[in-house]
Amino acid sequence: MVLTRADVERAADRIGAYALRTPVLEVEPGRWLKLECLQHSGSFKVRGAFNRMLGATPPAAGFIAASGGNHGLAVAFAARRLGVRAEIFVPEVCAPVKIAGLRALGAEVVVGGAIYQEALEASQKRAAETGAAEIHAYDQLDVAAGQGTLAIELLAQAGDVDTVVVAVGGGGLTAGIVAGLDGRAKVVAVEPERIPTLHRALDAGGPVRVDVSGVGADALGASMLGRIAYDTVAGRVTSVLVSDEAIVEARHALWRDHHVAAEHAGAAALAALRSGAYVPGAGERVAVVVCGSNTDPATL
Amino acid sequence: MVLTRADVERAADRIGAYALRTPVLEVEPGRWLKLECLQHSGSFKVRGAFNRMLGATPPAAGFIAASGGNHGLAVAFAARRLGVRAEIFVPEVCAPVKIAGLRALGAEVVVGGAIYQEALEASQKRAAETGAAEIHAYDQLDVAAGQGTLAIELLAQAGDVDTVVVAVGGGGLTAGIVAGLDGRAKVVAVEPERIPTLHRALDAGGPVRVDVSGVGADALGASMLGRIAYDTVAGRVTSVLVSDEAIVEARHALWRDHHVAAEHAGAAALAALRSGAYVPGAGERVAVVVCGSNTDPATL
Ligand SMILES: Cc1ncc(COP(=O)(O)O)c(C=O)c1O
Ligand SMILES: Cc1ncc(COP(=O)(O)O)c(C=O)c1O
Repeated sequence: MVLTRADVERAADRIGAYALRTPVLEVEPGRWLKLECLQHSGSFKVRGAFNRMLGATPPAAGFIAASGGNHGLAVAFAARRLGVRAEIFVPEVCAPVKIAGLRALGAEVVVGGAIYQEALEASQKRAAETGAAEIHAYDQLDVAAGQGTLAIELLAQAGDVDTVVVAVGGGGLTAGIVAGLDGRAKVVAVEPERIPTLHRALDAGGPVRVDVSGVGADALGASMLGRIAYDTVAGRVTSVLVSDEAIVEARHALWRDHHVAAEHAGAAALAALRSGAYVPGAGERVAVVVCGSNTDPATL
Repeated sequence: MVLTRADVERAADRIGAYALRTPVLEVEPGRWLKLECLQHSGSFKVRGAFNRMLGATPPAAGFIAASGGNHGLAVAFAARRLGVRAEIFVPEVCAPVKIAGLRALGAEVVVGGAIYQEALEASQKRAAETGAAEIHAYDQLDVAAGQGTLAIELLAQAGDVDTVVVAVGGGGLTAGIVAGLDGRAKVVAVEPERIPTLHRALDAGGPVRVDVSGVGADALGASMLGRIAYDTVAGRVTSVLVSDEAIVEARHALWRDHHVAAEHAGAAALAALRSGAYVPGAGERVAVVVCGSNTDPATL
């Protein structure tokens, strides 16, 4: 299923009053940071969550999601804002502080299974029982379309951008951006070397399961690219890999040089530029998506 | 000496290529944060530093300033960028990490005197000997005019703003903003209860010395309002005071709710709204200046 610019435009109309229009910072001529780390709930994920919720008639049982991370926070935030129920399934590995954060947003939290995949299956079983509407973390049309609204904003803020650099997990954000830009700028898709879901999918001609580890795993740690992402981005992005060291370095640089607090996943795109994994041409105008800030600031 | 809008416009032309155009974040309809915490060197102070340097022919001995804080960092940053010499006098109380930060920016650091006032006097003596050009932290026309460029940007970003809320130390920033707005929006000037330089000056009919203490003292701790600030803002601002507790609370809220890392001084303006020290009228459109981020992120 290929996501289209029309899907993203519809999402932009829907969520305009709910998601923040995050600012861009032009750090030097032709180099922008899109500060999605300042978005409600601390990441772009709330765009997809709002679009999914506003696109459905909320069932009595509300919405359900599996995530111990940014997707869960985003669903909980959006549900509270819209006054609907949200149930979030988290794996046992989820840190108590994250569970407390979800509860503070008013979500019902269920610890379901040892790892993410088990929590996801438990949430699906539950949804089948209660009639709650599932919100997938990336492989759902309304979710990926919502993430793409970031690109439409960016074009309004930095209209002459040539290239957008973005981090990939399950690929919802990247698919949304590719569809939202629809050729108006090229996309560089960045993954940690230790979580190459897109890179391997492009090699294999379709999503394949990969091992997941490293500093970005808490947010970028999908073990397989989503189908929507594959269908939407194959042949339309440049895929690059960055080391964990490069991600750590870029995250520190964001704070030291730009006073921007980001989580590791939020610094992965910048890492591609700083490490030379992607080298822009002369005069190429580049926007880097800083996509999340849910992090312990003491580690900046 | 009254600072004028023409002074600020001239400054905006001068420093446009050097200071960042910091973004605004509309956190709800009619409530903006002006994210000056993302400015080069971590505070608005670099606007004044660039304007002072670009407005003078650099003497062979370069520029000289007294400050163990944001003004020093800003002067060092601007000097490096413009390729001129900077000598920064800091008091003995200055933390070694700040001295290291100044040296890392290429400035020559001189420890001169027990407290700020002594460091300032030592710097003035030195300037008289070497011919270096002084850059005052607030009471200098080019410095205050540079800070005011923030207001001209803000009007372009949030044109229908009614009220700008800003923190006061020696008053350079506030004078610049009052002059830059020149009646296009009203100004609420916020001070810690424990450093009421403006509040007392307005009572007394002119700058008077006050005691300085509390969480904002490292950045807002001028012991007397500047002359330019008094002449420019008297009768043109609403002066309010906030407690240290309110500043601490606002700083945590900036991180928790908006993912913005600010120092205490940078949160003082928001504290006035959150604590009710300033209560906007119905429909009043308010921009809050988040003016600095030079802080240990572990304390957010
Ligand atoms: C901060 C951050 N960046 C990037 C991603 C990857 O997004 P996607 O799974 O849509 O590729 C995530 C996913 O959780 C995230 O939280
Ligand atoms: C972060 C911050 N905010 C506000 C101020 C106060 O500025 P002014 O002295 O121009 O009033 C300062 C001064 O150093 C500062 O560093």
